[in-house]
Amino acid sequence: MTLKYYHAEPLANSLKSMIPLIEKGLPYESVYVDLHKFEQHQPWFVAINPEGQVPVLDHDGAIITHTTVINEYLEDVFPDIPLRPRDPVGAARMRYWNKFCDEQVMNYVSMHGWHRMVGIIARSIESGEFERLMERIPLPDQRTKWRTARSGFSEADLAHATEKILYAVDKVEAQLAHTAWIAGDAYTLADINFFSYCGVSVERMFPELGIGKRCPRLVAWTERMRSRPAVARALAGEDRTAPGLRTWSGEAR
Amino acid sequence: MTLKYYHAEPLANSLKSMIPLIEKGLPYESVYVDLHKFEQHQPWFVAINPEGQVPVLDHDGAIITHTTVINEYLEDVFPDIPLRPRDPVGAARMRYWNKFCDEQVMNYVSMHGWHRMVGIIARSIESGEFERLMERIPLPDQRTKWRTARSGFSEADLAHATEKILYAVDKVEAQLAHTAWIAGDAYTLADINFFSYCGVSVERMFPELGIGKRCPRLVAWTERMRSRPAVARALAGEDRTAPGLRTWSGEAR
Repeated sequence: MTLKYYHAEPLANSLKSMIPLIEKGLPYESVYVDLHKFEQHQPWFVAINPEGQVPVLDHDGAIITHTTVINEYLEDVFPDIPLRPRDPVGAARMRYWNKFCDEQVMNYVSMHGWHRMVGIIARSIESGEFERLMERIPLPDQRTKWRTARSGFSEADLAHATEKILYAVDKVEAQLAHTAWIAGDAYTLADINFFSYCGVSVERMFPELGIGKRCPRLVAWTERMRSRPAVARALAGEDRTAPGLRTWSGEAR
Repeated sequence: MTLKYYHAEPLANSLKSMIPLIEKGLPYESVYVDLHKFEQHQPWFVAINPEGQVPVLDHDGAIITHTTVINEYLEDVFPDIPLRPRDPVGAARMRYWNKFCDEQVMNYVSMHGWHRMVGIIARSIESGEFERLMERIPLPDQRTKWRTARSGFSEADLAHATEKILYAVDKVEAQLAHTAWIAGDAYTLADINFFSYCGVSVERMFPELGIGKRCPRLVAWTERMRSRPAVARALAGEDRTAPGLRTWSGEAR
């Protein structure tokens, strides 16, 4: 049995499927894909994932993409240390929250991340070279996102994204008044999902929101997440991004 | 064992979980929720689903919402007639497509549906009454969507939605050159998902796209879908929308 995990820095999508691999004690070969060098759009990588996106799981040659799909796959194949409730109602609660994170949280945190980090990268590239790089991106939506990152996201879009993030943290805060973890009394993929997009960085990225005061349960939950050995091990991965771009690891904002 | 299914007309979301119930031969109590009377925002319904949206599955008192979550739940609890591949790689392929339909197709077809149908309803309501109805909508995003439907979606947004739909039908057409069904050689929830949003109505809603000529495999697949007894039975459900609003059942466009 061979597991290969293609990923970038341990944050957002790349973090989200790394934590389950470690929680389950699965040995895997780590393949670092350098997003700063646009490796995800190079022919060798597009041959593996035609969408040109990280992360990717290769399990004995079966290629699985999209983190929520990868994480359900790991539950199906390696159920011994479960991160998905075994009772169907519990699994449905977890999937409700996964869907919420994927559809209502991820893109909005991502927009701020791109605005602050990818925008700097995109603007540092000379025009002709930038157009050449754009042509290599397989997904039209990703091309649009790169162009927008270069020209800058609009204030209105960024404000809307902040509003959505605030709605999400308030929703999770309210849930944590009822249950110890996001989808119920057990730690699940839903916690890993929200943590990967919002938990790691939301306080640091949005100090103006005053999350610490506004959401004490969320802060306590974040600490519980960080103190899990598997999460700590994933987060200890090297931050290979340029020093000025370390939005996520906390060295830059 | 009691199953109750709260739904509107057999199209889009309401259709998407109705087909699996019928495919699996599960007897269920059908509860019609009249969206034209805004029943989904009334206290009796919000007590069942605090998000105020159809459909909802009530299985012996356990409330399950969101069609993709409902459909996975039905697979977990009633696996006898499977609509989700039993091998994990097959299940991952299905989930990849479900995610694509949920995130890249549904909202865009929905925007056109709302523009043509809900807009007429929203504009027929007198201002004071409209504001009173808006206050009852639990999800802020839904309130925004209603207001936009009333004032009209922008041409740019509608054109973007059409582009996304075209991308989706081309992607499915390309896939059907390789496999008999969307996620592989078996009929799965992915087929039901795409059919519920795009298959039923895309040719009729967008005659200008020339889908018939452009996507012959998609058209043949749509016919195969329609000829399944469970699908035919679901589609034969009564269209209770006002005659001028029958975008979906085909009597109006």
